[in-house]
Amino acid sequence: MSTPAYDDQNVFAKILRGELPSHKVYEDDKTLVIMDIMPRGDGHVLVIPKAPSRNILDIAPEDLNAVMATTQTMARVVIKAFDADGTTIQQFSEPAGGQVVFHTHVHVIPRFEGVSLKPHTGAMADNDVLAAQAEKIRAALA
Amino acid sequence: MSTPAYDDQNVFAKILRGELPSHKVYEDDKTLVIMDIMPRGDGHVLVIPKAPSRNILDIAPEDLNAVMATTQTMARVVIKAFDADGTTIQQFSEPAGGQVVFHTHVHVIPRFEGVSLKPHTGAMADNDVLAAQAEKIRAALA
Repeated sequence: MSTPAYDDQNVFAKILRGELPSHKVYEDDKTLVIMDIMPRGDGHVLVIPKAPSRNILDIAPEDLNAVMATTQTMARVVIKAFDADGTTIQQFSEPAGGQVVFHTHVHVIPRFEGVSLKPHTGAMADNDVLAAQAEKIRAALA
Repeated sequence: MSTPAYDDQNVFAKILRGELPSHKVYEDDKTLVIMDIMPRGDGHVLVIPKAPSRNILDIAPEDLNAVMATTQTMARVVIKAFDADGTTIQQFSEPAGGQVVFHTHVHVIPRFEGVSLKPHTGAMADNDVLAAQAEKIRAALA
């Protein structure tokens, strides 16, 4: 396969440009973290590089390092915020790999003993629930 | 939760010390890549840092960067080796997160249109099949 070119009309590019709303929990010069609106569990966040790339197949090494540094921070923070027992981290590339939005992103999902993941791209979460979870994560970061 | 201390009697520590066999496909000064013996699909490999760490909660940033650089290389290489349509990358921390071996590792799984992942820690693969897949990946790396 050859990786298709980056398309800047994807949802995360629009969020990065401020054209669509999101529940932001963290931001630095190279990364943004938002709540996943179709969460696989409580506190499911997405780590997004600000620079354009489609997925792990074309992301620049310095952007990948920035994404993973933020991913590590968020893994620790969501465990603290939700008193979780672990984390599951996922990154999907291309439709066969499970990718739905074609701007690189890493899923950080707090995990709890005895609680299974909900389906990938399942139900939309309630907006107020996401807002409350985002606030909890921001508080744990502070 | 507090992260338990690293235990050097885990399976990957033993593989790194040469005390247990594995199907090695790649090695550099900071990382090792082996075939997953309970693969979720053809060509499923594990990227392992050589330095001890339990998971993403305690890995040193330079080791995480090395792991992800090798993960990116392997994502591209397994697609080439197996003519795959994408990749799924997973990293599990602590038992609730899906972790079974307590030395940091990243799963790189080639994905194919219409083919679902097999269960995590499902059936053991045939040794000859893994050896042949490892050889295919080494050839694609060359």
